[in-house]
Amino acid sequence: MAYLSNKKEEADRIVLSFLPEESGYDKTLLKAMNYSVKVGGKRLRPILLLSFARMYGATEADAAPFMAAMEFIHTYSLVHDDLPAMDNDMLRRGNPTTHAAFGEAMGILAGDGLLSEAFTIISHQVLKQVALDQIKGIRAAKAFQIIAEKAGINGMVGGQSLDVESDKDKRDVTEDELEYIYENKTSALLEAAMMAGASLGGADEADIELIRKAGSALGKAFQIRDDILDITGDEKTLGKSVGQDEKNQKSTYASIHGIEESEKTVKGLTDEACGYIKQLSGVKNEEEREFVIELFGSLTERNN
Amino acid sequence: MAYLSNKKEEADRIVLSFLPEESGYDKTLLKAMNYSVKVGGKRLRPILLLSFARMYGATEADAAPFMAAMEFIHTYSLVHDDLPAMDNDMLRRGNPTTHAAFGEAMGILAGDGLLSEAFTIISHQVLKQVALDQIKGIRAAKAFQIIAEKAGINGMVGGQSLDVESDKDKRDVTEDELEYIYENKTSALLEAAMMAGASLGGADEADIELIRKAGSALGKAFQIRDDILDITGDEKTLGKSVGQDEKNQKSTYASIHGIEESEKTVKGLTDEACGYIKQLSGVKNEEEREFVIELFGSLTERNN
Repeated sequence: MAYLSNKKEEADRIVLSFLPEESGYDKTLLKAMNYSVKVGGKRLRPILLLSFARMYGATEADAAPFMAAMEFIHTYSLVHDDLPAMDNDMLRRGNPTTHAAFGEAMGILAGDGLLSEAFTIISHQVLKQVALDQIKGIRAAKAFQIIAEKAGINGMVGGQSLDVESDKDKRDVTEDELEYIYENKTSALLEAAMMAGASLGGADEADIELIRKAGSALGKAFQIRDDILDITGDEKTLGKSVGQDEKNQKSTYASIHGIEESEKTVKGLTDEACGYIKQLSGVKNEEEREFVIELFGSLTERNN
Repeated sequence: MAYLSNKKEEADRIVLSFLPEESGYDKTLLKAMNYSVKVGGKRLRPILLLSFARMYGATEADAAPFMAAMEFIHTYSLVHDDLPAMDNDMLRRGNPTTHAAFGEAMGILAGDGLLSEAFTIISHQVLKQVALDQIKGIRAAKAFQIIAEKAGINGMVGGQSLDVESDKDKRDVTEDELEYIYENKTSALLEAAMMAGASLGGADEADIELIRKAGSALGKAFQIRDDILDITGDEKTLGKSVGQDEKNQKSTYASIHGIEESEKTVKGLTDEACGYIKQLSGVKNEEEREFVIELFGSLTERNN
């Protein structure tokens, strides 16, 4: 999917342009923050946000601050998740984690800095849009509301919390609890990116609800693929340690249901997610719809 | 100052009404968050926010979500600051700190949850106000922008970062660095509360700049009073350990300049802060102006 590499470059360009300059008395903090974002990942959330924004007729300029904010929030969640008191991971994407490179205190503060900066960037955009005109203001405020909600206790932080609690108690989670963790720890920020993008283009409530369902199914498929790769994957291709779930006696969908059934579930969830996208009624840009459907497939079939 | 105890009760009622219900799979997280907020403090930031809002003609309903958000952000900053990798404090306000009561991972997540919830509360209010009318939308978005900025890398998190760095290096900070730490670690959130409140009432840029200066001077006076109390204070009255700065070989304004000069500086900064408040030209409610001036005095003369 060569097209995806262009999309990643585009997202990289936009996200990195929002990084703070590394100067002043808090230079170490800014370096740790920028390091965390720069080493990083697939840029999946900003790519999705931009695609859904364009799908409904919004522009790159409308989407850019929210793209950066989503990537900063996703990055902060990884930085805090890697801390010694949490997953205690020293390696991510083949590089030292933030606390491994900058120390534990700076790992905590870099995460706090990224989350705060995400909302600072959003605040400037919301204020600008409200001052411009009320419709644009409502759309930006809606995107802000979706992102804040899905990042917090009714989303990502909530999911992390149950994950941490069940790890601490060294107990097997129930199927319902596992569903809650996947929905909140993984799906929530994907849903947020897609829903916020669509909101910027003025998508109606019915379409936003379909997009939420698509994000929820995609996130679960994505997470189960992660579980499968932790069992069958190759450390070099993945750029991270494998066999971690078994080592930590962590129940996952794949460990409970086995590889074969998990593969089927991933396929089913991906089809479900694509089905919702096909149902969207207010789409203005069909190319973006096609891209998103293609992207969903490539994400859940990935080997890294 | 009996009037202040009414103001504290009022702020308590409003702030606590925004706490999440302790139910669902992330109940432990919600308990940890609510514990952190409930044990707490003077409610100084919400009191200031409400007073400045009223001073410019805004209502309690306009201010309430921002009051809760400010207190949640202040609380998260304490919860993370108390963590083992940071100040490693087990006691605050006479009670176990959040990580002491709920474990280190939950301390990190409770802080993350509080910061996210602060912006979630703000997002609902901004969206509501923008949908109501553009002027109200601009005022709420402005308050959001001020709070986000002062909470992050150009404010509180920035100040924490230099404080942590200089502690780690076991080196004496320069006067300029100390000024930076006090301005960002302590003043920033006080400024934010005061400026955001005034913004909700539509204060003009000149008044907001005077209010920023007042908050800056107040924060420094407040912090130097803290330094003095760490040397001369009484553990029982303070509800926290004293002599911590000396024990940690931490340079403070009071340790550098001595008690007598520090007392003079506190007096000078308090007068300066009150002077700015007296200069404000758009005040609609003189009672609130008088209350704020009285409050400044009582805060910098306090013994707890």
